[in-house]
Amino acid sequence: MAKTIKIAIDGMGGDDGATMVVHGLSIAKSETPNLEFILFGRDAILVPLIAEYKNLSSGVTIIHTDDYVAAEDKPSQAVRRGRKSSMGLAIAAVKDGSADVAVSAGNTGALMSMAKIMLRTMPAIDRPALTSRMPTLTGECVLLDLGANVDCNAENLVQFAVMGAAFSRTVVGVDRPKVGILNVGVEELKGSSAVKEASQCLRETHPNMEFNGFAEGNDIGTGKFDVIVTDGFSGNIALKTIEGTAKFVGALMKNAFESSISSKLGYLLAKGGINDLKAHIDPNNHNGAVFLGLNGLVVKSHGGATPVGFASAVNVAFNMAKNDLSKLISDDLKNYDEAAPVQVLAAGD
Amino acid sequence: MAKTIKIAIDGMGGDDGATMVVHGLSIAKSETPNLEFILFGRDAILVPLIAEYKNLSSGVTIIHTDDYVAAEDKPSQAVRRGRKSSMGLAIAAVKDGSADVAVSAGNTGALMSMAKIMLRTMPAIDRPALTSRMPTLTGECVLLDLGANVDCNAENLVQFAVMGAAFSRTVVGVDRPKVGILNVGVEELKGSSAVKEASQCLRETHPNMEFNGFAEGNDIGTGKFDVIVTDGFSGNIALKTIEGTAKFVGALMKNAFESSISSKLGYLLAKGGINDLKAHIDPNNHNGAVFLGLNGLVVKSHGGATPVGFASAVNVAFNMAKNDLSKLISDDLKNYDEAAPVQVLAAGD
Repeated sequence: MAKTIKIAIDGMGGDDGATMVVHGLSIAKSETPNLEFILFGRDAILVPLIAEYKNLSSGVTIIHTDDYVAAEDKPSQAVRRGRKSSMGLAIAAVKDGSADVAVSAGNTGALMSMAKIMLRTMPAIDRPALTSRMPTLTGECVLLDLGANVDCNAENLVQFAVMGAAFSRTVVGVDRPKVGILNVGVEELKGSSAVKEASQCLRETHPNMEFNGFAEGNDIGTGKFDVIVTDGFSGNIALKTIEGTAKFVGALMKNAFESSISSKLGYLLAKGGINDLKAHIDPNNHNGAVFLGLNGLVVKSHGGATPVGFASAVNVAFNMAKNDLSKLISDDLKNYDEAAPVQVLAAGD
Repeated sequence: MAKTIKIAIDGMGGDDGATMVVHGLSIAKSETPNLEFILFGRDAILVPLIAEYKNLSSGVTIIHTDDYVAAEDKPSQAVRRGRKSSMGLAIAAVKDGSADVAVSAGNTGALMSMAKIMLRTMPAIDRPALTSRMPTLTGECVLLDLGANVDCNAENLVQFAVMGAAFSRTVVGVDRPKVGILNVGVEELKGSSAVKEASQCLRETHPNMEFNGFAEGNDIGTGKFDVIVTDGFSGNIALKTIEGTAKFVGALMKNAFESSISSKLGYLLAKGGINDLKAHIDPNNHNGAVFLGLNGLVVKSHGGATPVGFASAVNVAFNMAKNDLSKLISDDLKNYDEAAPVQVLAAGD
């Protein structure tokens, strides 16, 4: 029988709070029966919601807390006062081993700060990285760091590559991910010293990833790379630029289809295909950002996720825990500690 | 009578070379009669092409040269050997004052390197910036630097803001451009020390721009900002991410419209609106990247531009020269030299 994975859930996070979360748990459980949930939040709200879903009648433990982190709370407030919140208790459950992984749709800054302080960084990792999957023409591309670290050196980027490749293997299911470093051109001479040194270090062959050199911004969506690594400044700008451009094109498409009666009719006829397109780029289908590199697994769901989107984040959590992502990362990092990086980095750092 | 603007043209640049260029000149001249062209390239090719367009029978001087910079030439080769090329002579015409501005659809790296070395940076500018216009929902956003400078300090960013605002006024026609600095969040505490210091410096009010603080990647297409300033690393990534995402959505749209007979029929009915959408985001309609901050104006057309696209780049050149962009930039910079920046920058640099 497959191993049961225990997932700590922040029951009060997200724009629609507990209603969305519990509905999402039911969807996740119908797809993956060997899940157990430890659900943190207000009894009075959660108990009746759970009662609505037959498949949640077992395998769900509710742990009551009155406190929760609000969307407008500052990370520093959450760290000071949020330990007893539904979010804080979910992270604590990972720390004390009562859960394999935690999922929250709450305040991103608060979740990142609390996870970092409560779980701390893995011994072999200097800086954890916010990681997510982007849709491509052929599948999904793992992109990191998305904003946790504004400045990164070569060593950070190498560690991100190792973490991103392990994430791609366990969550996206790519056996030997094609990895690239985001840069302003693909030639070896281009870019900052950090990207050049990291590239040199990753060129050493490795059984668990295929390093394909530099990637450019227009490579994110093509499927040419399974993992693209960058510093948190560029990664955040790339992520938000993608979101903005998709919205921009969507708004123009809406205008296009409303521009005449014949366009409106055309839209109705083409609706099936257009809905497939929308589903393909719908963030709910790629939901579940992960803060990689901590002593414990934490998944961030979009605050505005639908129940299906939240279930997608739970599925990310399940895959990471089932495959013991943290151990994979530690093991893979040893390949780099013992190889070239020390010499290469010493030259420029 | 309006002042005649003299434009030096690299007749041999671009994927379709002289044919596209000369056709573009004819379109530009039909829109703006008071243009004079000095056209550099091979007589034997250019003379018969010019003869095809009635409105080019006057106002065009052809200066013969056998040499041209090839698409695959390295910038360093172009700098060493390219002075007598059609590209090099066009830049030289700006330098010696025989032309007000130069336009080339040739090799970008070669054009940037030759322009920088031959024209040199303006006295008040530390680093020139590659600048272009992106379509937004309401008009165009000027984005710089797009890749000339991988690392930038606060002073560079302030200078880019001044140059970008002057470009927006003269080329896009915005009276008092809304300027932002690209960052990973809009809060004052976010980002690198360079963006924070630049923001503080630009907060001083200024008659020729309205500084609106930090912009995020998803702000580029909304029309909220007329100018967005960033370092060349992030700018290049944002630019290519926009191109990549637009292509990605375009490819998905194509699939959507080909997914069934009813979708194909729908496409035919909606075609008018969809063509408007395509025109809105067509790079040809926003063509003409500019290397701002040099002692002379140089415009880079896309290598794959259509004749209409090349005419759009010529129009950018015309507007910059007519409004004496270089003088506007010098004048505006004085507002910052005399104000807060010196103290602010001294604290962190």
